[in-house]
Amino acid sequence: MFKPVTLKEVAAKAGVSYQTVSKVINSKAKVSPETEQRIWDAVAELNYTPNYSGRSLRQQRSKTIGYTWEPSPQDQANPILDEFLQSMFHAAEEKGYYLLSFPFHTEEKKLLDTYRELYYTGRVDGFVLSRLNYGEASVPYLLQRNIPFVAFGRLEEDDHSFPYMDVDGARGIAQAVEHLVELGHRKIAALAWPDDSRVGNNRLEGYFSGLTKAGLATDPRLVVRGEGTAEVGSEATGHLLSLPEEIRPTAIVSMNDLMAIGAMQAVRNAGLQPGRDIGVTGFDDTPTARYLTPPLTSINQPVSAIGKNLMKRLIELLETGSYPEPKCELVAPSLVVRESTAGYRPAS
Amino acid sequence: MFKPVTLKEVAAKAGVSYQTVSKVINSKAKVSPETEQRIWDAVAELNYTPNYSGRSLRQQRSKTIGYTWEPSPQDQANPILDEFLQSMFHAAEEKGYYLLSFPFHTEEKKLLDTYRELYYTGRVDGFVLSRLNYGEASVPYLLQRNIPFVAFGRLEEDDHSFPYMDVDGARGIAQAVEHLVELGHRKIAALAWPDDSRVGNNRLEGYFSGLTKAGLATDPRLVVRGEGTAEVGSEATGHLLSLPEEIRPTAIVSMNDLMAIGAMQAVRNAGLQPGRDIGVTGFDDTPTARYLTPPLTSINQPVSAIGKNLMKRLIELLETGSYPEPKCELVAPSLVVRESTAGYRPAS
Repeated sequence: MFKPVTLKEVAAKAGVSYQTVSKVINSKAKVSPETEQRIWDAVAELNYTPNYSGRSLRQQRSKTIGYTWEPSPQDQANPILDEFLQSMFHAAEEKGYYLLSFPFHTEEKKLLDTYRELYYTGRVDGFVLSRLNYGEASVPYLLQRNIPFVAFGRLEEDDHSFPYMDVDGARGIAQAVEHLVELGHRKIAALAWPDDSRVGNNRLEGYFSGLTKAGLATDPRLVVRGEGTAEVGSEATGHLLSLPEEIRPTAIVSMNDLMAIGAMQAVRNAGLQPGRDIGVTGFDDTPTARYLTPPLTSINQPVSAIGKNLMKRLIELLETGSYPEPKCELVAPSLVVRESTAGYRPAS
Repeated sequence: MFKPVTLKEVAAKAGVSYQTVSKVINSKAKVSPETEQRIWDAVAELNYTPNYSGRSLRQQRSKTIGYTWEPSPQDQANPILDEFLQSMFHAAEEKGYYLLSFPFHTEEKKLLDTYRELYYTGRVDGFVLSRLNYGEASVPYLLQRNIPFVAFGRLEEDDHSFPYMDVDGARGIAQAVEHLVELGHRKIAALAWPDDSRVGNNRLEGYFSGLTKAGLATDPRLVVRGEGTAEVGSEATGHLLSLPEEIRPTAIVSMNDLMAIGAMQAVRNAGLQPGRDIGVTGFDDTPTARYLTPPLTSINQPVSAIGKNLMKRLIELLETGSYPEPKCELVAPSLVVRESTAGYRPAS
């Protein structure tokens, strides 16, 4: 494919000895921060990739993919973790690869250092990223260094600078709105996330496009933003239900299941029945959704297909040097209708 | 510590060449099943451990721990996966170790082959096992081969042949029974698992010991066994509520949250109110529990402490050659009281 850059060239560029470069890259020695920075700059500039000297003797590759993820708060199970991991390492095993997981560091530098160390010491051949948000530093960091990766998620709506698969969240919420309109709802509210969340904004877009498609006006008073928790969902819904009757919503679409859980609690607290009086929808189709009272209408993401395909494509990139088409792919989620949107009778 | 057995000794024992042993151990060559068996028998008999020739050049160890787990059915999130993984790989990172995960194979031979290959090719230095049940083949397999491992769980109540930490499930359920007795319940039923489940039997023991401690007789008609699903919990509870009044239970302890979810549904279907009319308890304290209607009293396992300690102890074993005390440890879970056991007024 290409003539690999050697450690010697990196050393020359950085103006230090071969040994120093080797020690820094293998985290075996402390040098001054300036020297270390010079070495990493040289690595990035030359697009140095590890010479595998530290790798498995037999195959010149670790055949290992690195993955880290932000842990869920204790009261919120990660709804897709098991499925995503299983689908990835089954696909990996078919090609003789394994998944290496490591702690997520909220401190950006520490996280990037971990990526760097895992790659340049030859522990992993590439990475899977997930839950990207605006300004996620890992993406440019890995791109600059030519470190192979794929992502579940994207940074911007129309970014095509790196390979990813993502769920078309807008399409999911638009389906929920369409479903509610079909049931006769005309005043539909949204429980949205803070506007620094790319995923939240993407989903909320579907709310607006769904209303527009149905010929309904949007009303800013019916969009409430807050963290995606049950508490915020409950509080926001309490507020929505206290609005004057002419604007008070008869249905609420939530950007995740937890907010919908809170919304249903608030509906009951107001003496109303979720489903019959106020339609409520979630997003994620958590295992919990079907066991709620009433069972929650939600939006299911094809997590297994995404995990499997991402892994297959990353391995193809590693083994052939080129990423298969499509480089960037949006997949449609599906609406799962349950009783939280059943039984509504519009006043006629 | 000890003089390691060499590949040559294994070859002599198996009556094949050094090259053949090396190829088989590194999965690089197919030989006849008989030859392969002879080689693995020799490996086990001599307690051969890898000579690390295939391992990282720098440190003679992969500094990697292997872990696999049985995937959850799609409607049942694994309630402890994220927390267990996070606690393990944070503890691992502190010592410079990582976690390698790989697919769980229900076919026993394939699973054991995977353990073997990961260890003898030097990809991992040891394993964490979880969810052990009676007759779990991995345990004797790894013990025989002297492959280091620790387990979350045990095979038998009083087994001390390998290092583990386990939750004292009996103690958890006994706490639930005690709590119900304090509230005034006298007829307490149990939703139990099939008797081929060691975890289920352990938890059920706590039901019997809790009743005995409270001076209450046990009634076999109040113990219903079935798979730990919401459907089974609902059906079993429907049956319990249809019993003649003199034996009909006023409270139900379930061996997991899903069965308790089904139990609460059946209570409602019978026109009764969980908590006020029939007390219901779960086990696992899934994130779901607090969002149910009513919120579910459940039993919380100290998963983070277990993951962290298991990993620390395994690494100590790997680095010092001896496992720190205690080799086998039972930890107490804690009862989390919520509304599903509130408001009961015994007929006096």
